[in-house]
Amino acid sequence: MIRHETRVRVRYPDTDQMGVVYHGRYLEYFETGRTELLRDLGLAYATIEAGGILLPVLEAHLVMRRPARYDELLTVVSFLRELPTARLHIDYEIHRDDEILATGATVHAFTTADGMRPVRPPRAFMELMEREMMKGRGMREEG
Amino acid sequence: MIRHETRVRVRYPDTDQMGVVYHGRYLEYFETGRTELLRDLGLAYATIEAGGILLPVLEAHLVMRRPARYDELLTVVSFLRELPTARLHIDYEIHRDDEILATGATVHAFTTADGMRPVRPPRAFMELMEREMMKGRGMREEG
Amino acid sequence: MIRHETRVRVRYPDTDQMGVVYHGRYLEYFETGRTELLRDLGLAYATIEAGGILLPVLEAHLVMRRPARYDELLTVVSFLRELPTARLHIDYEIHRDDEILATGATVHAFTTADGMRPVRPPRAFMELMEREMMKGRGMREEG
Amino acid sequence: MIRHETRVRVRYPDTDQMGVVYHGRYLEYFETGRTELLRDLGLAYATIEAGGILLPVLEAHLVMRRPARYDELLTVVSFLRELPTARLHIDYEIHRDDEILATGATVHAFTTADGMRPVRPPRAFMELMEREMMKGRGMREEG
Repeated sequence: MIRHETRVRVRYPDTDQMGVVYHGRYLEYFETGRTELLRDLGLAYATIEAGGILLPVLEAHLVMRRPARYDELLTVVSFLRELPTARLHIDYEIHRDDEILATGATVHAFTTADGMRPVRPPRAFMELMEREMMKGRGMREEG
Repeated sequence: MIRHETRVRVRYPDTDQMGVVYHGRYLEYFETGRTELLRDLGLAYATIEAGGILLPVLEAHLVMRRPARYDELLTVVSFLRELPTARLHIDYEIHRDDEILATGATVHAFTTADGMRPVRPPRAFMELMEREMMKGRGMREEG
Repeated sequence: MIRHETRVRVRYPDTDQMGVVYHGRYLEYFETGRTELLRDLGLAYATIEAGGILLPVLEAHLVMRRPARYDELLTVVSFLRELPTARLHIDYEIHRDDEILATGATVHAFTTADGMRPVRPPRAFMELMEREMMKGRGMREEG
Repeated sequence: MIRHETRVRVRYPDTDQMGVVYHGRYLEYFETGRTELLRDLGLAYATIEAGGILLPVLEAHLVMRRPARYDELLTVVSFLRELPTARLHIDYEIHRDDEILATGATVHAFTTADGMRPVRPPRAFMELMEREMMKGRGMREEG
């Protein structure tokens, strides 16, 4: 399993008149989470797209526990639990200090640049994920 | 069951650089769908809020089949399949002509205006839903 | 002068925690105004883009008078006051019943599809605008 | 003059189908710029609001020079050139490396929490600004 953390600051336009973050914005926080996970893995999403492969969202799921509020500094925790096959699954948790405010998941396809045909995950991506998962496994064994 | 249709036009800011609607925007289309469903039922969401009750989103789910594109006129079909108890469940389909482009669901709580305490669904809301569901059942029996 | 009206409903995600429409959303209302103006003129913006010409925004200006609120039905009034040369100027007013809530303007270039080179306004666009402006002048003369 | 820099990363939902940042998003980048400027000054906007004072936007102006693109790391430079009286003026520049991609400005009122009545700028805010402007002047005199 690969686990990655990144920070997002709740912006004013993320709030709605309930005085909390509009639920649709969490999908954008998930987006930031997986963007930074991929960058950290060594293969920025911008590079994947430049290589002619898209990862469109097939599914998105969100479960709210507690509302987030303006100007809070949240932690997006993103989880890659398995090597992708035809699809890439990513799980998310939104933390504020010790609390989990929301959880969610996205499922992605790998497609050609026109979004029309499925393709295999890029080899560089698979190799980086395998290497990282090895490290993860090693670390857990040591622990 | 209550079934309601409303139209949304894909706006330029709804698109992303894949040339299709950004997935997070579908949650906003669902929002428009349920807003117009409630208005049509005779109890606008703005009126519910003015009465001191909020319907925050607890869950949101989205499954994409085909991308929607700029300037397309989509139909949001919203379904209320059962009377709410502590929670309100709504299902959605996004249609373009004969195709279903996406499906989804949201789950809502009923809370006090500060969002802190759960409350019962407003009586007016329950009565309107019951009456509408009766009509729906009647129509199916006639058909 | 060409004057065009279209309706926009304030959506929940348009509001912020001040309980009013977030100022950035007005640029999206202006976008809807000019999209419908162009469609009404007989040359939808989607068709202009399909013809290989973009109208990127060079400037946007917004002046607020009174806040708009959730679920209000606003009228976007868009004004084309002169034939475009290298640039297209559009003015806007956001009305709620008899009140003007906001005014603004956008300035656009005409460019190639990659956004890199300026081009002349499409001939069809110029002809439609000229014809419409003639009508406008005629109508005023009759009045 | 107070000059402040902060970084923003262009997110996928900030782009549109032209393959560049949607112009309305720049107002959100300006928002991030002034939020971080105020925080740095020692008086976070969240604290100002908690003290019962709002700074609604009265005007927003944007001039584009070159488009920003997905995943670019931009610098928002915010300028407070003078002590606020009834209104607060802030200027902005969006930089990518050595290039200025966009410039802009916002004008804000100080109002009561319901947004209905103008109030004087909070004393703490004025004092912090005066002190910072003194420092700025001092630095320039030394240089």
